[in-house]
Amino acid sequence: MDENRAARVRAVLDAVRAEGRTTLTAPEGKEVADAYGIAVPGEELARDVEEAVAHAARFGGPVVMKIVSPDILHKTEAGGVVVGVEGAAAVREAFHTIVGNARAYDEHARVTGVQIQELLPEGQEVIVGAVTDPTFGKVVAFGLGGVLVEVLKDVTFRLAPVDADEALSMLDSIRAAPVLRGVRGRAGVDRWALAEQIRRVSLLVAEFPEIAEVDLNPVIATPEGAHAADVRIILADGPVKERRRYAREEILASMRRLMKPRSVAVIGASGEPGKIGNSVMRNLVDGGFAGDIHPVNPKADDILGRKAYRSVGDVPGEVDVAVFAIPARFVGAALEEVGRKGIPNAVLIPSGFAETGEHALQAEIVEIAERHGVRLLGPNIYGYYSTWQDLCATFCTPYDVKGGVALTSQSGGIGMAILGFARSTRTGVSAIVGLGNKSDLDEDDLLTWFAQDPHTECVAMHLEDLKDGRAFVEAARATVPKKPVVVLKAGRTAAGARAAGSHTGALAGDDAVYDDILRQAGVIRAPGLHDMLEYARALPVLPAPCGDNVVIITGAGGSGVLLSDAVTDNGLSLMEIPPDLDEAFRSFIPPFGAAGNPVDITGGEPPSTYEATIRLGLEDPRVHALVLGYWHTIVTPPMVFAELTARVVAEFRERGVVKPVVASLAGDVEVEEACQYLFERGVVAYPYTTERPVAVLGAKYRWARAAGLLGGGS
Amino acid sequence: MDENRAARVRAVLDAVRAEGRTTLTAPEGKEVADAYGIAVPGEELARDVEEAVAHAARFGGPVVMKIVSPDILHKTEAGGVVVGVEGAAAVREAFHTIVGNARAYDEHARVTGVQIQELLPEGQEVIVGAVTDPTFGKVVAFGLGGVLVEVLKDVTFRLAPVDADEALSMLDSIRAAPVLRGVRGRAGVDRWALAEQIRRVSLLVAEFPEIAEVDLNPVIATPEGAHAADVRIILADGPVKERRRYAREEILASMRRLMKPRSVAVIGASGEPGKIGNSVMRNLVDGGFAGDIHPVNPKADDILGRKAYRSVGDVPGEVDVAVFAIPARFVGAALEEVGRKGIPNAVLIPSGFAETGEHALQAEIVEIAERHGVRLLGPNIYGYYSTWQDLCATFCTPYDVKGGVALTSQSGGIGMAILGFARSTRTGVSAIVGLGNKSDLDEDDLLTWFAQDPHTECVAMHLEDLKDGRAFVEAARATVPKKPVVVLKAGRTAAGARAAGSHTGALAGDDAVYDDILRQAGVIRAPGLHDMLEYARALPVLPAPCGDNVVIITGAGGSGVLLSDAVTDNGLSLMEIPPDLDEAFRSFIPPFGAAGNPVDITGGEPPSTYEATIRLGLEDPRVHALVLGYWHTIVTPPMVFAELTARVVAEFRERGVVKPVVASLAGDVEVEEACQYLFERGVVAYPYTTERPVAVLGAKYRWARAAGLLGGGS
Repeated sequence: MDENRAARVRAVLDAVRAEGRTTLTAPEGKEVADAYGIAVPGEELARDVEEAVAHAARFGGPVVMKIVSPDILHKTEAGGVVVGVEGAAAVREAFHTIVGNARAYDEHARVTGVQIQELLPEGQEVIVGAVTDPTFGKVVAFGLGGVLVEVLKDVTFRLAPVDADEALSMLDSIRAAPVLRGVRGRAGVDRWALAEQIRRVSLLVAEFPEIAEVDLNPVIATPEGAHAADVRIILADGPVKERRRYAREEILASMRRLMKPRSVAVIGASGEPGKIGNSVMRNLVDGGFAGDIHPVNPKADDILGRKAYRSVGDVPGEVDVAVFAIPARFVGAALEEVGRKGIPNAVLIPSGFAETGEHALQAEIVEIAERHGVRLLGPNIYGYYSTWQDLCATFCTPYDVKGGVALTSQSGGIGMAILGFARSTRTGVSAIVGLGNKSDLDEDDLLTWFAQDPHTECVAMHLEDLKDGRAFVEAARATVPKKPVVVLKAGRTAAGARAAGSHTGALAGDDAVYDDILRQAGVIRAPGLHDMLEYARALPVLPAPCGDNVVIITGAGGSGVLLSDAVTDNGLSLMEIPPDLDEAFRSFIPPFGAAGNPVDITGGEPPSTYEATIRLGLEDPRVHALVLGYWHTIVTPPMVFAELTARVVAEFRERGVVKPVVASLAGDVEVEEACQYLFERGVVAYPYTTERPVAVLGAKYRWARAAGLLGGGS
Repeated sequence: MDENRAARVRAVLDAVRAEGRTTLTAPEGKEVADAYGIAVPGEELARDVEEAVAHAARFGGPVVMKIVSPDILHKTEAGGVVVGVEGAAAVREAFHTIVGNARAYDEHARVTGVQIQELLPEGQEVIVGAVTDPTFGKVVAFGLGGVLVEVLKDVTFRLAPVDADEALSMLDSIRAAPVLRGVRGRAGVDRWALAEQIRRVSLLVAEFPEIAEVDLNPVIATPEGAHAADVRIILADGPVKERRRYAREEILASMRRLMKPRSVAVIGASGEPGKIGNSVMRNLVDGGFAGDIHPVNPKADDILGRKAYRSVGDVPGEVDVAVFAIPARFVGAALEEVGRKGIPNAVLIPSGFAETGEHALQAEIVEIAERHGVRLLGPNIYGYYSTWQDLCATFCTPYDVKGGVALTSQSGGIGMAILGFARSTRTGVSAIVGLGNKSDLDEDDLLTWFAQDPHTECVAMHLEDLKDGRAFVEAARATVPKKPVVVLKAGRTAAGARAAGSHTGALAGDDAVYDDILRQAGVIRAPGLHDMLEYARALPVLPAPCGDNVVIITGAGGSGVLLSDAVTDNGLSLMEIPPDLDEAFRSFIPPFGAAGNPVDITGGEPPSTYEATIRLGLEDPRVHALVLGYWHTIVTPPMVFAELTARVVAEFRERGVVKPVVASLAGDVEVEEACQYLFERGVVAYPYTTERPVAVLGAKYRWARAAGLLGGGS
């Protein structure tokens, strides 16, 4: 931190605090802006009318005059602003008008004086601001200014501080971005100057966490620069709390023992069918877990053929995980024993904690766990699966299709939907984890583990909130270069009611901030539950593209049109087919078929036409991804298409040509079997839909971009 | 048409045509505007500088001065506009500048003079325009003016002419609508004056079809009025073609015989498996069609046990439908025979017409058909199903699940997807019809039939274009009050390249116009193929709501949050639960459950809790629709939930309480069977998704609103 600027701001803030205020006056705002090099028009405080005339004369051109009063927040509303005043007489008149209006507005308002400000040239009005988000902390915002944009909520957010590149990227993240670049012959604005305003505001709030909100509204951006016409700064009421954080190595040490345990104790294990403690025991045993399983139950000697212990303290040797299947009120005492035994992980299935209003009970177990260094999963969860360990520590049923996706859910119901969907579609899974109340372990801990877990190729998370948005973003950023992270954020529409003292605050609905910041972290946001599940199933199966050129090959012209729509909707690029490739395609298709893109091979073609054109698409290095549209005919039945496609794709993969291939199958019910066949062979295929295969390809592309595998960045 | 205004406009247009122009000058535009009462500022043409000074003096305040030249279309670009000129000296100077700039811009430009126009007050800039859409004809447009809105493409369209109510509705159809009503203390604009500008422009183009485009850009809207600052009018190059139309009774007469035939001839029937003429014969026979089936084949005596005829002319008695299964080149001759025999319908399965570039061949058969009064279905189709007649006149396979949805598709591939999806989900179908090249019969003919077909409760159509958008809108408007119409419009992104001489034209991309006008017609637009299929399956099953109050009852809190998101996303209203109803819900759910909405009964509840709360929702007349979130537990297994829900819903329906109920089932694979069970009993239920049940409910609500069953209108 620059010492000088810090001292200048510190002095201003201390003075504001000393007066018991949380809102800075305009001159105070200017002093802070000056300290951070935030460009503002020249201005002076006039304590009386003669000072006003003198300041205005020194600025030369027309000026803006504004009331300065610690008691008046909304200056325009108070009649405290006059724009474009020029000449001594006019300045005199405006001064009296402003002060008079202020008195009329609030007779007790303390009037410090009138601010005399250079009138900025005409330009594009934008807003640059910062708020303190309950999830993400300091967040910087950018949007066009004016009434229209406020109505359209065309604004973008980033975690503060941002560097120059990130700040620049914000200019392109609003829908009205072309306006800034200049349209209809108008010149664009000075992008660097504007980005610099954003960067400096973000630095200010990052270095002074007690600044709750900043509004530069409007900033006047012209081809020559960007100046904040108004600076509003609001301080936080109280001090900011810090959350406990664990180092990466600490997280990995306990997560390793959670996800790859050698020994599991079940506290509350039971031999009685219908009890949760019985389901957990049976699932551990039936699931085929190869490590030790120790039932703990003071009233039994033996459960499911295994020796039972009175207390977890009596279990011999090291234990990696204690699964709790006892009522909430007994959890504390048992957790003390778990802690004394040095077990690093407690999986708390029981409900009856914060979710039922029992916050004190939850705080109590968190305290016990922190005291002993035990990490908690839950409470109020179904448990968790670690499939490559054949570990099913849940009261549901075992799941044994090993594969590349790790799924987590905050809600038990969503966990059950994950399990059912996975079983129905034979989705290959590395883990399914319930997070429930997230009293301790949460998404960022799990991400830290899955990022380095060689079995996991994709992470999909259902969440309703984040305890620490910054920790999540950090974990996501570390994961995304290695594997895709899909997030279903529930509760998009819950916010809105947040009290805000600034325009930026009013624009920063929960979901708008989540959306921008998750995207910035390279996360693929699923629009709904079913999308999350489909992405989870498909992304590990689909190889990453290494370029932007998508080619559609279709037997049905109608599917081709819909697939093209989907390609556009998903932000993908239909390749412009070069003449030589076009000619090559044409050599295989009937004269009335359409080359170009989609390549329409026409209905009624034999398997050889599908095969030849798919080969061509895989062979040509300028093509990066294939979207196939199959049409069920007698000449090429569904399984014939599936077999030839899988065979050709496998042959090319063996030769090292690995491109994503997705397919939409239009036909009678046999296409369902064909899709399953293709899916199991690495071709993402769906029946009766043109949208879904392309949506999955789109998700893979979004990840590939975020991971830096393609040009362009996130 | 008002004789006087018509004569005034006629005179202007004739003069423009006489000069070989298609673009009106500003004074000509003003004359047309005046004739139609389109409010414009006062203005006069100054032929020389002294006239300019005199006109400006008469207007009093500041004026705008603009070049008038038939050769200069872009006046601003030519330096031909000066704004805010006041006083004789300034007017003189501006006159010389403008004329000088025009000469510099184009030395051969003919300069008629300079237009002197009253300067309008500041206000909200909007654009009102009209274009000639290739599908829908005259279309009127409205949006905010200015660069920003052009970038955001925030504009809305209606078929011209519009009445005052429709014109007013356009003001609320743009995203920036709140700006017009006034925000942040600013006054709103004069909505009636603005709507009147729209209405009058729409009337002008409707009464003068030769006017291709109109731009009022900008219109300055203030709290006191709305004046067009600039009027641009462009005429069509050539005359406008009229399409042949049939009267409703003519359409129904032939459609009745197509959809409920007593006798069908198959031209090109064959006994040889693998031939299309064999598939069609077998499907007619195997499908169980009870009417006469007459094979026509000159080389056979008998096909599938039925007497074959050498020519369709030899078939005894009346024939309602001739299905063609012969190569394209033989269709013409056979069609002549069909015409001579007086058969009203020809179903043309063969391809090889316009879709392969054989436009002349297609024109030839259309000519033959029109000459004989034969209606054509196709060519290039799979045929059609009329399930309640057990009629399968296709080369696919029979489909026998009778039900309420009629489906049509322009593409054969999509037709196959319809068939496969329907079979897989046991969708109840009244008809599936292939439209292919639409050489004659198209969506509006079919809609006219389905609207009055008692078996059809919902119509779902896949289309890539409409031959006559106005006829479709007419048919849709007549259908929607009786039953929902779902449309999947493919090719959303095809346009863009349309040449446009006006701003309105540039904003009128194909899809924007389709989207607004289909919505205006009360059509439910499906965002994708799978959505269309799901709507088709579900809408006939789901009763119509009779009010806006939606209540979510959920066992899984996590599903409740996602269902709430979906309710908001689909524009539905979560009911604010009145205190007495809240208390009633609370009496059934655990103390830590949440009443309010969603009603969260919490996981682990027995069947009786689901039943009691569902009963309450159905019983209370203030609740209009239920969204259920089920969570699979041992206490309430999936089929138990399904049975109790179906039983309670049926009981209430018997008592005359008919409300839409949709359900999202989160659980293991058994939930799939439970969903099918519920679906077959009128509860629209889906596994592993919270979005889809609510999307279907949203579609039903959109229809109910368009059909006038709820307040608010379309």
